[in-house]
Amino acid sequence: MKIGIVGANGYSGAELIRLLARHPKAELEMLISHRTKGTMLTAQYPHFQHIAEAELEDMAPDEILNRVDVLFFATPSGVAKDWIPCFLEKGLKCIDLSGDFRLDNGEAYRRWYRREPAAQNYLDKAVYGLSEMNAFRIKYAQLIANPGCFPTAALLGVLPAISGGLIDPSFIAIDGKTGVSGAGRNPSLGNLFAEVNENTGAYKVGIHQHTPEIERFIKEFGEQEAKVTFIPHLVPMTRGILCTIYAPLAKKVTTEEVRQYYKEVYKGRKFVRIKPAGSFPSTKEVYASNYCDIGVYADERTGRLTIISAIDNLVKGASGQAVQNMNLLFGLAEHEGLDAVPVYP
Amino acid sequence: MKIGIVGANGYSGAELIRLLARHPKAELEMLISHRTKGTMLTAQYPHFQHIAEAELEDMAPDEILNRVDVLFFATPSGVAKDWIPCFLEKGLKCIDLSGDFRLDNGEAYRRWYRREPAAQNYLDKAVYGLSEMNAFRIKYAQLIANPGCFPTAALLGVLPAISGGLIDPSFIAIDGKTGVSGAGRNPSLGNLFAEVNENTGAYKVGIHQHTPEIERFIKEFGEQEAKVTFIPHLVPMTRGILCTIYAPLAKKVTTEEVRQYYKEVYKGRKFVRIKPAGSFPSTKEVYASNYCDIGVYADERTGRLTIISAIDNLVKGASGQAVQNMNLLFGLAEHEGLDAVPVYP
Amino acid sequence: MKIGIVGANGYSGAELIRLLARHPKAELEMLISHRTKGTMLTAQYPHFQHIAEAELEDMAPDEILNRVDVLFFATPSGVAKDWIPCFLEKGLKCIDLSGDFRLDNGEAYRRWYRREPAAQNYLDKAVYGLSEMNAFRIKYAQLIANPGCFPTAALLGVLPAISGGLIDPSFIAIDGKTGVSGAGRNPSLGNLFAEVNENTGAYKVGIHQHTPEIERFIKEFGEQEAKVTFIPHLVPMTRGILCTIYAPLAKKVTTEEVRQYYKEVYKGRKFVRIKPAGSFPSTKEVYASNYCDIGVYADERTGRLTIISAIDNLVKGASGQAVQNMNLLFGLAEHEGLDAVPVYP
Amino acid sequence: MKIGIVGANGYSGAELIRLLARHPKAELEMLISHRTKGTMLTAQYPHFQHIAEAELEDMAPDEILNRVDVLFFATPSGVAKDWIPCFLEKGLKCIDLSGDFRLDNGEAYRRWYRREPAAQNYLDKAVYGLSEMNAFRIKYAQLIANPGCFPTAALLGVLPAISGGLIDPSFIAIDGKTGVSGAGRNPSLGNLFAEVNENTGAYKVGIHQHTPEIERFIKEFGEQEAKVTFIPHLVPMTRGILCTIYAPLAKKVTTEEVRQYYKEVYKGRKFVRIKPAGSFPSTKEVYASNYCDIGVYADERTGRLTIISAIDNLVKGASGQAVQNMNLLFGLAEHEGLDAVPVYP
Repeated sequence: MKIGIVGANGYSGAELIRLLARHPKAELEMLISHRTKGTMLTAQYPHFQHIAEAELEDMAPDEILNRVDVLFFATPSGVAKDWIPCFLEKGLKCIDLSGDFRLDNGEAYRRWYRREPAAQNYLDKAVYGLSEMNAFRIKYAQLIANPGCFPTAALLGVLPAISGGLIDPSFIAIDGKTGVSGAGRNPSLGNLFAEVNENTGAYKVGIHQHTPEIERFIKEFGEQEAKVTFIPHLVPMTRGILCTIYAPLAKKVTTEEVRQYYKEVYKGRKFVRIKPAGSFPSTKEVYASNYCDIGVYADERTGRLTIISAIDNLVKGASGQAVQNMNLLFGLAEHEGLDAVPVYP
Repeated sequence: MKIGIVGANGYSGAELIRLLARHPKAELEMLISHRTKGTMLTAQYPHFQHIAEAELEDMAPDEILNRVDVLFFATPSGVAKDWIPCFLEKGLKCIDLSGDFRLDNGEAYRRWYRREPAAQNYLDKAVYGLSEMNAFRIKYAQLIANPGCFPTAALLGVLPAISGGLIDPSFIAIDGKTGVSGAGRNPSLGNLFAEVNENTGAYKVGIHQHTPEIERFIKEFGEQEAKVTFIPHLVPMTRGILCTIYAPLAKKVTTEEVRQYYKEVYKGRKFVRIKPAGSFPSTKEVYASNYCDIGVYADERTGRLTIISAIDNLVKGASGQAVQNMNLLFGLAEHEGLDAVPVYP
Repeated sequence: MKIGIVGANGYSGAELIRLLARHPKAELEMLISHRTKGTMLTAQYPHFQHIAEAELEDMAPDEILNRVDVLFFATPSGVAKDWIPCFLEKGLKCIDLSGDFRLDNGEAYRRWYRREPAAQNYLDKAVYGLSEMNAFRIKYAQLIANPGCFPTAALLGVLPAISGGLIDPSFIAIDGKTGVSGAGRNPSLGNLFAEVNENTGAYKVGIHQHTPEIERFIKEFGEQEAKVTFIPHLVPMTRGILCTIYAPLAKKVTTEEVRQYYKEVYKGRKFVRIKPAGSFPSTKEVYASNYCDIGVYADERTGRLTIISAIDNLVKGASGQAVQNMNLLFGLAEHEGLDAVPVYP
Repeated sequence: MKIGIVGANGYSGAELIRLLARHPKAELEMLISHRTKGTMLTAQYPHFQHIAEAELEDMAPDEILNRVDVLFFATPSGVAKDWIPCFLEKGLKCIDLSGDFRLDNGEAYRRWYRREPAAQNYLDKAVYGLSEMNAFRIKYAQLIANPGCFPTAALLGVLPAISGGLIDPSFIAIDGKTGVSGAGRNPSLGNLFAEVNENTGAYKVGIHQHTPEIERFIKEFGEQEAKVTFIPHLVPMTRGILCTIYAPLAKKVTTEEVRQYYKEVYKGRKFVRIKPAGSFPSTKEVYASNYCDIGVYADERTGRLTIISAIDNLVKGASGQAVQNMNLLFGLAEHEGLDAVPVYP
C-alpha cells in the first residue's frame, strides 16, 4: 500500500511516519509539505536518520493520484476541505486528521472554526473515524474524518454511559487535560517551554471547536441530545490527554455494574482497556501507544458518575487512530502496525 | 515575634522558613523536626546556606512555651491533634497547617481521615483560616485551622457564586489539578520524578479528605447545603493548584455581571485577583506568591457557570496563608512579608 | 526462546518486558521479583494490562533452570554476583545488567562499589556486552556483563577517537547528563519529582563507579591507558543520557575527517548513527529506541576535539543493549525486536 | 530613583520589573517595548496584575532623558549599541544586559556576533559588570556591560582557581547547562515545549559568543591567557545555569585547600556561597535568587580540578546582577532589593 501524507512536517505527520515506517503493509511513498518542500525530512526531524530519508515534496495532485493508494491529511483545519474534493472525485481514499469534515452542519463549522465549510455533499460523504464505534461504516468509506483528540477520549469515555442509560445527559461536564503537542509544531508564545513548564491553565473556555463534535456524536452514537460543557486545559507535558467526565447517575448502579457494562461494550476491542475497580487511568500508561484506558466511579454519596479516560493525543488521538482506520479501510487486521507497548516510564 | 515551627523539615515547613526569614516582624526561634533533630537545617535544605543556619530540634513542649510566641504545625495529619491541646491549655497561639482541626464533626474526620479525631472541645475552638472569608474571627482566635490547599482554591472560587445565588448548588463538580509538592517530602513511588513526569491522572477518586472540608464551608460561609464531587488530579509540576468548578447557573447572568459581583466580594482583599473578561488564571501566574487568581465564564448556550481559580499550593494553599493568618492574629498588616511578585517564567 | 528476568519490578526489568513482549523469537516465561513476589505485574505496572499479565515469582533456581533458556539480571549491583555462579555451573546463559561483572579487578570493584566482588574465575568468564565493539566474543559467551548506561555512551563516543589516534589520552573529561530513571524505581529523596524538576546538578563527583569501567575498556578496546575525569549530572528528564567528551587533538584533523573516520568505524552497525557535520545529537532523538547518536567537533582554534553521544539510558544504556546481546548470543539478527523508531516529540 | 527599561517585554525585562517593583529605592518610570508599545504590560504578562500596570511605551530618547535616572537595556544583542551612545553623550547612566559592550575588541564582536560592533570609544567606556570582581570600577561607571549568563557562572567559578595559580590554563573545558528562558520570549522551533521537554543536547558548538567574553575576562581578572572550550547545553528547565569546569591542577592541593582559598576570595561577598566539602551546587538551590553557589573537587587520582557553579540565569545571570550593579552605581547597599530566598522546591 503506497502512502501519501500531506503535512508531513507537523507533529501528527511525523507520528504517521513513525507508525507507518514499521507497518508491515505500508510504504511511505510521498511526504508532502508545502512550506518545507525540497528539504529532507531528516533536516526537519533528525531522529528519522537511517529510518525515513525522503525529500519533502510539494502538493501535486496528479503526482499523488499516480503514486499513492491512500492519502492522509495531517494539516491544520482549513486545508483539507479545499483539496480533498478533487481527490474524492478521482476515487482516491482520503483520511483527514483535521476538523474539516467532522461536523455535518456547515453552519456549525462556520461558527466554531470561524472559517467557510466544505460543500455539503462532501460533508455528507465523510465517515467519522471513531474506530471502536463506527468500524462497519469506516470499512466502506471513501473519506474518513478522523476524530479530534479530545472527542476521541471524551466519546470513548462517555458513550457507553449514555447509550446504557446510566447517566442523565442534562448535565455533562468534561474537563480535558492535554499535553502541548496537540498545538502542533508552529512556534507561538503559548507553546514555549518557559510558558508551559510548571504551569497549568484552561484555554478556549466555552469556545473550543471540539465541543460541537462531541455533542454531534453523543447524539449519533448515543441517541441523546446533550449540551456539553467542555473545558480544555494545558498541562506541562508533551503527549497525553486525560478527560474527566462528570454527570448525574440516571439510576442506582454500583461502580462494579458500570465497569461490567463498559467491559461488555468494548468486548473484543483491543485498544480500549477498562481499568480494574478502584484504579483510574493515567496518560503515561498509554504513552506512545494506541490504547484508550477508561476508569469509572459511581458515587452513591452524591448520586453521580465520574468517568476518566486517557489516550496519547498523537496516537489514539490522531495518527494511531488514522492508521487503525486505514487498516479497517483496506481490510487489514485492525491492530496491524499498532501493537506498540506503552513506553513507561 | 518569636516563631516555632513543628515539621520544619517538610515542604510546608521549609516554605514557612522561606517566608518568615524575610518577614520584618518575625524571628525564627525554634525549628522542630523529630525525625531529623540534631541535624542542621542546611543539611536537609542546602539552599538555606547563609540564610537560616539553625539546628533542627526535637519536640520539647516546655522549651517551646518558654521560647516562642506562636507555633506552626506543618506536620502530616494526625500529629497536631495530639500536641496542640497542651499548648492551648498554656495559652500559646497555634496555627495548624494539617487537616486535624478543619472538620468540626469528629465522626466525619474519622471517616475521611481514617484516624481518631481530636476531642470535640478543641475542634470547636478552632477557627478556620480562610483569611479572606473569616478575617474577623481569625484575629481573635487561639487556634487556627489553616485551610487545605484544594479547599482554599475551591472555596475562594465557588463561595461568591453560592452566596450571591448565582449557581444552583444541587450539582457542583470541582476538578482539581495539583503539582506534586502537596504530597510532601516523603519518598514514595507516587511522587518519583519518573512516575510523575509526562503523566497526568486522578487520585483518591471519591475519597479525598478535602471533600468534607469544602462542603462544610460552603455551608458555613455560603449558607447552602451542597454535595460536591471533587476529583483531584496530579499534573507534572512542582507547585500550583488549579480548580475548575462546574455548576448550573441559578439565573440568567452574563460573564461580566458575574465578574463584577466577584470584584465586589473581594474588594480590598489584596491577594485575590479577578481576571479580566475572557482571561483565565494559570498556576504560573501566581508562582511563589500568595495570590489567588479567579476567572469566570457564564455560558449562555448551556446555562452553566465555570469558575477557575489558581494558587501556589505551598503559599496561599499552605504556608503563605498561614503567615497571612499570623499577621491577622497579631494585628499586623495582612500582607506583611507576603508581597512577593509571582516568579514568571 | 524462554526468557527469565530477575528484578522484573525495576525500571530496566520493565523495559526488558516492554521489548521482549514484542520480540518475535522470545517468550516471557518467568518474571522474578523477590520483593513483590505473588503480586501481578500489572499491579506494579498497570500499563502492561492485556500485554503481560503474569504473576511475579520468587527466586527459585531449580525452577529457573527447568523453565528458561536465558536469564537476565536487572537487579541493583550486589545481587547478580551471588546468584550467577550457580547458574553458570549448570550451563544457563546469563545477561547481567548490573555492575557486578564489568570490572575484572576485584579490588577495583571493592573500592568503587564498596562491596565484596564475585570470585575471580567468574569475573574472568564475563564478556563485556558493548555490542558494537565486542560482537564476536559476545556470540560465544556464557555470561554477559551488560555495560553501564554512561559507559555505553562514553565508550561508543570516545573509542574511535582513541583507537584512531585522534586524541591525546592524557586529558579526557567526560561530562555526563542523565535522566532520573537510571536511579531505578526505589523511592528516595533524590529522585522525587519536586527535587528533580527545574533542577540540574552533579552527583557522585569523583566517585562514580562507572569511571573504572570506562577506563578499563578504553584500555581494552582502545589500547591506551587513560585516567578519565567523569562527572555525572542529573537533569530533569526521565530517559536519556548525553555524554560530552573533551580531549586535546593528537594531530591536525578537520571535523569532516573525524566524522568520516567515525562512519568507517561504525560502518554496518545499525544502531550507531553519526550525525551530519554541524549537527549534534540530543536525547529525544533516540527516545525509546536502541540508537546511539554521535556528533564530533574538531576545534582548530583550541586544538581540541569535542565528542557528543546520546542514548536512551533504559534502551541502549540497559535493556535494549541486553536484548541486542541476547540476539547475538542466540544467533539472531542483531536488531530483532529492536527496530522501534524513536518517539519524537 | 526613576528607572527606564528598554525591552520590557522580554524575559530579562520582566525579571527587572519583578525585582524593581519591590526595590525600596526604585520606581518603575518607563517601560519601553518597541514591538508591543501601546499595550498594557499586563496584557503581555498577566501575572503583573495589581503589581505593575503600566503601558508599554515606544523608544523616545528625549522622553527618556527627561524622565529616568538610569536606563536598562534588556534587548537582544545589536540594539543597545545603536542607542546607547546618544544617552551617554547626554550623561545618562546605562546598564546594558546584552552582549554589545562586553568585548573591547570590535573585530572579535564582528566575528562572534556576526554584526557590526559599536564604535571603539564606547567599547572602551564600558565597565564589565561582574559585580564581585569589578565593584570598584562599577561604582564610577557610566555604562555597564552586564555579563552574559554563562560567563557569570563560568568566571565566578574559574577565576579564583586561575588567579590563585591552582590550575594550568592550557586546558580549560567548560560544560554549560542552561534552562531555556535564556533564549528569550521569541517563539522559535528550538524553544517549544514539545522540543525541549525530555530532551538534552548541545547547541552552538564551538561558536557560542560567550566564549570570547570568558577568555577576555580570564585574562583581565586572572591575568592569564587561556583558550577555553565552552560547550553550552539546553536542559529541560526554565531557569538555571550550571557550569562544570575541567582543568589540570597546577600544583598538589586538596579539595579543602581549594575550598578555603575560594572562601577567602569571596569573603564578604554575600551572593557567592562556597559549598561545604563533598557538596556541589544545583540550580534549584539558587532558584529566583541572586546567589551563585560554587563547589570544587581536587582529584588526586587524576591530578585535575573540577569546579561547579550554579546561578539563576535570569537573576544573577542577567537582571539580578544588573540591579546589583545599579545599587553599586548609586551608592546603595549591594543587596538592596535582592535578598530573596531561593524558591525551593
